[in-house]
Amino acid sequence: MSDAGGEDHGHESTPSRRRARKRLREGCERALEQARRGPLGANPRVGAALLSPSGELLATGFHRGARTPHAEADALAVARERGLDVHGATCIVTLEPCAHAGRTPSCARTLVDAGIGRVLYAVRDPHDVAANGSAILRSAGIDTRLWSDALPASVGRDLTARAAELNRRWFQATRESRPFVTAKIAQTLDGYVAAADGTNAWITGEDARAEGHALRSVVDAIAVGTATARADDPALTARDAHGRLGARQPRRVVIGESPLEPHSRLAKAVHGPEHARPLLYRTRDIRGVLEDLRADHGVEHLLIEGGPRLISAALSLDLVDDLWIHQAPTMLGAGTPSVAGLGIETLSERLDFDIVPESLHMSGSDLLFHAIPRTRQQTPTKGE
Amino acid sequence: MSDAGGEDHGHESTPSRRRARKRLREGCERALEQARRGPLGANPRVGAALLSPSGELLATGFHRGARTPHAEADALAVARERGLDVHGATCIVTLEPCAHAGRTPSCARTLVDAGIGRVLYAVRDPHDVAANGSAILRSAGIDTRLWSDALPASVGRDLTARAAELNRRWFQATRESRPFVTAKIAQTLDGYVAAADGTNAWITGEDARAEGHALRSVVDAIAVGTATARADDPALTARDAHGRLGARQPRRVVIGESPLEPHSRLAKAVHGPEHARPLLYRTRDIRGVLEDLRADHGVEHLLIEGGPRLISAALSLDLVDDLWIHQAPTMLGAGTPSVAGLGIETLSERLDFDIVPESLHMSGSDLLFHAIPRTRQQTPTKGE
Repeated sequence: MSDAGGEDHGHESTPSRRRARKRLREGCERALEQARRGPLGANPRVGAALLSPSGELLATGFHRGARTPHAEADALAVARERGLDVHGATCIVTLEPCAHAGRTPSCARTLVDAGIGRVLYAVRDPHDVAANGSAILRSAGIDTRLWSDALPASVGRDLTARAAELNRRWFQATRESRPFVTAKIAQTLDGYVAAADGTNAWITGEDARAEGHALRSVVDAIAVGTATARADDPALTARDAHGRLGARQPRRVVIGESPLEPHSRLAKAVHGPEHARPLLYRTRDIRGVLEDLRADHGVEHLLIEGGPRLISAALSLDLVDDLWIHQAPTMLGAGTPSVAGLGIETLSERLDFDIVPESLHMSGSDLLFHAIPRTRQQTPTKGE
Repeated sequence: MSDAGGEDHGHESTPSRRRARKRLREGCERALEQARRGPLGANPRVGAALLSPSGELLATGFHRGARTPHAEADALAVARERGLDVHGATCIVTLEPCAHAGRTPSCARTLVDAGIGRVLYAVRDPHDVAANGSAILRSAGIDTRLWSDALPASVGRDLTARAAELNRRWFQATRESRPFVTAKIAQTLDGYVAAADGTNAWITGEDARAEGHALRSVVDAIAVGTATARADDPALTARDAHGRLGARQPRRVVIGESPLEPHSRLAKAVHGPEHARPLLYRTRDIRGVLEDLRADHGVEHLLIEGGPRLISAALSLDLVDDLWIHQAPTMLGAGTPSVAGLGIETLSERLDFDIVPESLHMSGSDLLFHAIPRTRQQTPTKGE
């Protein structure tokens, strides 16, 4: 690890060298800011900043989620729109540029083609297919380094840690060969998802439900437990405010040991067209189901919508990456708790989260926010 | 009710008359905005705007809570600071100026002395002592009217309704001859105030606890139930971040049928100096206790800190005017629920609130917000 900033390898600290370091550091900050604008989901959150050869900020960009341009391409498009020359520019990006050419060329190739002069990335891409973007860049003769190798040690460490934290749960899901898991809880202020007699339509209001449908339209699959499938007879489709089906529908998944009601909507769909058939997993091995969904069905983002038993089991196994809490301004004092059976006896065993402050908002009269599980102290219990 | 704006009593709508109305209406909007900045508590939330005789906005003000200047005095002080002449000005205020001279002269007298030319107030003051501020103003020859009499009917109705809504719960508490009641719940994301084994120190973090102590320092009294008094042995004092006692301490109140533990802090204080003695009510008649606290102990703002049984009983009886929810980013899945025994069987019987969007904030890693009970559809059950 070098302690010198930018292209300077000497030990002297001249004003111009300090200025260059300061600009790199600011570029990293801009890239991190951009990354935070992206959604959590199938893809990591990535931000990019383009600096001119003399260090001026040319453009920034970020990744808006699956099926949209990557951060590097977004920043290049912004620069192009502004009519700016990116030849010889430095691209600062929070994650290693991908090597994966799919619908679009890989980011590494895009950067080479754009004539970028230097690439600084914060964190290595853990994804198999994409893992050698830096090799592509280097073989094209582009100076390609980690932030930690381009910035003074303490600054580089701090910025790198922040870039890693942005996608901590996404890295974990990738390592565990499972989809990124979003769980959604729609509860009362006192934590119930249904009243004592089972009534639950509707706890949250129209606006919050519309946000729920928007979420359904971006995930690859939605899972519910068999108890919920039996109690609510859900369609698990993504619909607009008028009840119309969206163009993109998530795969429907039912997990649990009980069979479906034979006349339920999900049971009927088993005999429908192949792509719309629910996947039924008669098991309680959630981790196994997740691995199968990723490997055999290409599910990279799974939404667990309920019920409490399935969400609680996933939380206990540390399989929830992003928890959406929709809180209705109402109290019941009794009913079905949103979470149960975590096996927690005393306060020190609690499951801790970080509430995402930027996610906090009112949706109609409901409160919505994201909570990200904190890193567990001990190894989580594995499957059954 | 006149349909003409300002001082115009004719039916013609000239450009200057329309402009005058528009300015009055904007003045009412400013006064409402200001009022919303004030805290809920012993005193109503009030905002004021001063307009020059030609209709220009001179100054605004609001009431910052017990032991601070009223909104009219605040606006006059702002105008004075700016060196502005308020002679002949219009004072627009969201509540009838008070007639009560205490530590400071009454607002009605203050407005007369300042040479104000016209007073427009939204809502009559329901408070006995203060109820004839408008009479004082009129007998001093000041044109004094309700907003609804000074603005076109539909506009006046809307603005008046908003002014009334600002203090809906305060009016209710005043009508019921009881203190304004704030209840505070510090719970997990899933609605528990203690783990299964009873551990509860601490659910929320330091910042949220500091906000709790700041609240204790402004209320007149704090109440807990006997179960909490026995389980937690609380001191119920207002302390700063270093544990030092604040200058102003709330009266301590214990409500419930069980006796105190003889060696508890509260039991010992019974033999201490008179002003620091806890008030012990061996009853479950909360409404009776509240009436007594107001009538015999001058308690105008009561904080109910717990436990769940006392808060739930107060909620059931519609005796909570402002609910503070401190939500820690943690889950337990079991334990002591924050609220219980509301007797609600089905969703339609739920207790509804309005979350106050401006109150929503992060306090350290905890989420804090206020929820105001909505108007009940049916008459709440009285007493036991």
